[in-house]
Amino acid sequence: VGPEALSLWKSKSTFTSFGVFFLQMGWGDLGAFGEPSKETPNLDQMASEGMLFLDFYTANPLCSPSRAALLTGRLPVRNGFYTTNAHARNAYTPQDIVGGIPDSELLLPELLKKAGYINKIIGKWHLGHRPQFHPLKHGFDEWFGSPNCHFGPFDNRALPNIPVYRDWEMIGRYYEDFKIDLKTGEANLTQIYLQEALDFISKQQASQQPFFLYWAIDATHAPVYASKYFLGTSQRGLYGDAVREIDDSVGKILKRLQKLGISENTFVFFTSDNGAALISAPKQGGSNGRFLCGKQTTFEGGMREPAIAWWPGHIPAGGVSHQLGNVMDLFTTSLSLAGLQPPSDRQIDGIDLLPAILQGKLIDRPIFYYRGNEMMAVRVGLYKAHYWTWSNSWEEYSKGIDFCPGQNVSGVTTHTQEEHTTLPLLFHLGRDPGEKYPLSFASDEYQRAMERISVVVQQHKVTMVPGEPQLNVCDKAVMNWSPPGCEKLGKCLKPPKSDPKKCFWPH
Amino acid sequence: VGPEALSLWKSKSTFTSFGVFFLQMGWGDLGAFGEPSKETPNLDQMASEGMLFLDFYTANPLCSPSRAALLTGRLPVRNGFYTTNAHARNAYTPQDIVGGIPDSELLLPELLKKAGYINKIIGKWHLGHRPQFHPLKHGFDEWFGSPNCHFGPFDNRALPNIPVYRDWEMIGRYYEDFKIDLKTGEANLTQIYLQEALDFISKQQASQQPFFLYWAIDATHAPVYASKYFLGTSQRGLYGDAVREIDDSVGKILKRLQKLGISENTFVFFTSDNGAALISAPKQGGSNGRFLCGKQTTFEGGMREPAIAWWPGHIPAGGVSHQLGNVMDLFTTSLSLAGLQPPSDRQIDGIDLLPAILQGKLIDRPIFYYRGNEMMAVRVGLYKAHYWTWSNSWEEYSKGIDFCPGQNVSGVTTHTQEEHTTLPLLFHLGRDPGEKYPLSFASDEYQRAMERISVVVQQHKVTMVPGEPQLNVCDKAVMNWSPPGCEKLGKCLKPPKSDPKKCFWPH
Repeated sequence: VGPEALSLWKSKSTFTSFGVFFLQMGWGDLGAFGEPSKETPNLDQMASEGMLFLDFYTANPLCSPSRAALLTGRLPVRNGFYTTNAHARNAYTPQDIVGGIPDSELLLPELLKKAGYINKIIGKWHLGHRPQFHPLKHGFDEWFGSPNCHFGPFDNRALPNIPVYRDWEMIGRYYEDFKIDLKTGEANLTQIYLQEALDFISKQQASQQPFFLYWAIDATHAPVYASKYFLGTSQRGLYGDAVREIDDSVGKILKRLQKLGISENTFVFFTSDNGAALISAPKQGGSNGRFLCGKQTTFEGGMREPAIAWWPGHIPAGGVSHQLGNVMDLFTTSLSLAGLQPPSDRQIDGIDLLPAILQGKLIDRPIFYYRGNEMMAVRVGLYKAHYWTWSNSWEEYSKGIDFCPGQNVSGVTTHTQEEHTTLPLLFHLGRDPGEKYPLSFASDEYQRAMERISVVVQQHKVTMVPGEPQLNVCDKAVMNWSPPGCEKLGKCLKPPKSDPKKCFWPH
Repeated sequence: VGPEALSLWKSKSTFTSFGVFFLQMGWGDLGAFGEPSKETPNLDQMASEGMLFLDFYTANPLCSPSRAALLTGRLPVRNGFYTTNAHARNAYTPQDIVGGIPDSELLLPELLKKAGYINKIIGKWHLGHRPQFHPLKHGFDEWFGSPNCHFGPFDNRALPNIPVYRDWEMIGRYYEDFKIDLKTGEANLTQIYLQEALDFISKQQASQQPFFLYWAIDATHAPVYASKYFLGTSQRGLYGDAVREIDDSVGKILKRLQKLGISENTFVFFTSDNGAALISAPKQGGSNGRFLCGKQTTFEGGMREPAIAWWPGHIPAGGVSHQLGNVMDLFTTSLSLAGLQPPSDRQIDGIDLLPAILQGKLIDRPIFYYRGNEMMAVRVGLYKAHYWTWSNSWEEYSKGIDFCPGQNVSGVTTHTQEEHTTLPLLFHLGRDPGEKYPLSFASDEYQRAMERISVVVQQHKVTMVPGEPQLNVCDKAVMNWSPPGCEKLGKCLKPPKSDPKKCFWPH
């Protein structure tokens, strides 16, 4: 950020707080991004008061690695949130995972803490559920939510139900103490998460402390839920009800900031951890608009995300940016706003977006699309080169697991892992955002674009030092049998004998 | 329109003029509808100052029939703009067509003329090019444009180049006097059409006459073109350049209305005659967003259109409507605004949209999706029932003609004409706007929805009196060899001997 812009916000505020909304929602789920039911008035208003990012990406087509990337500013292949059990496989943190966020990683809240910030996570942590990975050990001061997805209900024998934590200890379990009715889709959770956010903001404002609020809720992740008031209110069915409730919550949180007079001191960003899960559509999954495929894939539908930056008085209202952005940039941008430097002892992949946000600059930077341990594709400017293509295996596909329902691009949405490293498939995302028309290998345009891209890829590969993979080993003994606090509640369960195995990652 | 709203606009103006922008552009081509390059600032502003229609349809997935429907307020199967040469075939008016708009049809400009309106068409007429079909014989006072698409260049032996008319007479031909450079995509035509519009508006304002301006230009129809200033300016390639020039033109026309102080007396509507021609994409075709397939088909991508109503001081800014609308409604709505009744001696399919536009009402009405002589599908509320499915034939498809590139929904995007009249395929367009998930025939929801839809369809079929089909006979002798005015220009060509045949309609 240039000195003028910097002094502008410094003069207006003594601190800048941060809010990050990080959800599973597709590019095409917001009215502002062309969702035809137009049911997100609050998010659309956030966009019209702030800046819409049209070329913004997540770091991975799956939840845990993206969340690790957001908080570390680093690609999952660096911070360990990937697997080497098989080639190019998506991995995450189910409750039998042994790994989690390594102590060696520096998380955004850890760094902000040194500058006096109070940090809270509301919702799904997903960076490991064993005690050493607890968010309060990694810089957060407060937590309300769960370590894993809200799958269930389980019988507490083969699998325990997922615990819900307040700070250090569990206060109950999903389906037992925090009801989710899978039949009706009713759950009151988003309302609880909303209230947590409102209370936290009011408390910090009263104590005049800068804060980082990470609202990482899970209502649009299958099993999708909404509270009673929102059930049946959307044209889009249950998924739409959940979106409407989130939209309403975002609106209430922004209004609270305004009412407390701290909206001009609070930088807020809304985005998503992966593309809509088309496998769960239409009832439990959203929309990636016109983009190809969805969650689990490195096509645009899997990783291009809705993104809105909001900071009244600083970000010009109604702005639109074509800056190539990534969730990892929120790490670096937040540090920049807090007057902190990113760690210099490691590779940071996120860039400072402030010049793009405040001065409308376009920073030249690539986007890497990883699936597990493999760089599947890269975007440079408007060109995207696929070095590997894969939707999912024939075996999974034949079982009805389809990451690209209704879509089929010959030679692109392949059901075997196809290597194109010597002659990448190249798309121009301006003319062809849907990745349907690979450029001719013989064209001058192909040659020119690939010359530029090859340099970027070579540089990336040469300097890549992968982290120790955290998502290789699974063990039923490490599941959420006896989380801290279970004794007080009488909710401790007996774990089975330890039997660590290679995790199986089919996708 | 209720008495309050009516008196409102009556008191504010002595007359209400109409502008209709009618182009070939897809639902997903506008930033306001989620086009990811966001290159239509003027249309987006028109939307934010007016009302966005999200569930608006054209009357046919092809140009001529839609244009006939717009001007008559009647389905093509009634006004004759269809063929019976084969089942469910799209037909239009190439220059060897013998038919055209019948004298028995009453066109919007004919009716408005009686109320003192001056009517002008700028661009493609497409309702027949033989003398009896001339737009000035059907209510228009002025014409600048061509009777057919700007295909070419032709050699003036096998085929004559398409003439450009000013009013009654031709003033030149495409490629000869009105250049289109197919290699570079450069043509100055949109600029000429823009100037015609601006001049007409200023002239009518000066003479205090109410007007109807029908701006039906063709720059986004293959072969796509843009003027030099716009070439190479879009992320989307040549098609995007053409869109940007149209967007710029729309902005200039609206600004002219404002500058002349008549924007509050002018009702303006922007929409499209069919979905984006995906067969021409990506270079020569646009985007239907997340909808299925494109032009030529009765899936949403073929017939759901971008639509914006603009009338400052009357239409609330930033409004959004889910009213099911159709281009035929512009006929009835315009008559309503002019204080005229639609003809009572024939079936009119268009409805008066003013209650939806001015009072936010939702009028219950079906949308019929015709392909030639067949009702392929019907929409009632959020449900769409397909009675027939067809993309195109295997024969055409195997030649590379693909109306649904990258898309394939099993049993839906069929390559044979599939009859579902006894058990229609049913989709819920709220949950599933992409028509990917047919409802289970056994479900209660299917039963309930089909009960309602069946009544609508039965009623429609019982009262349907098809018009005499106009698009059955073709004859090379009727082509644009010697249009009126050719003598003065020395541009008359000798027609071949008459040899009328059944037209061949492959799709």
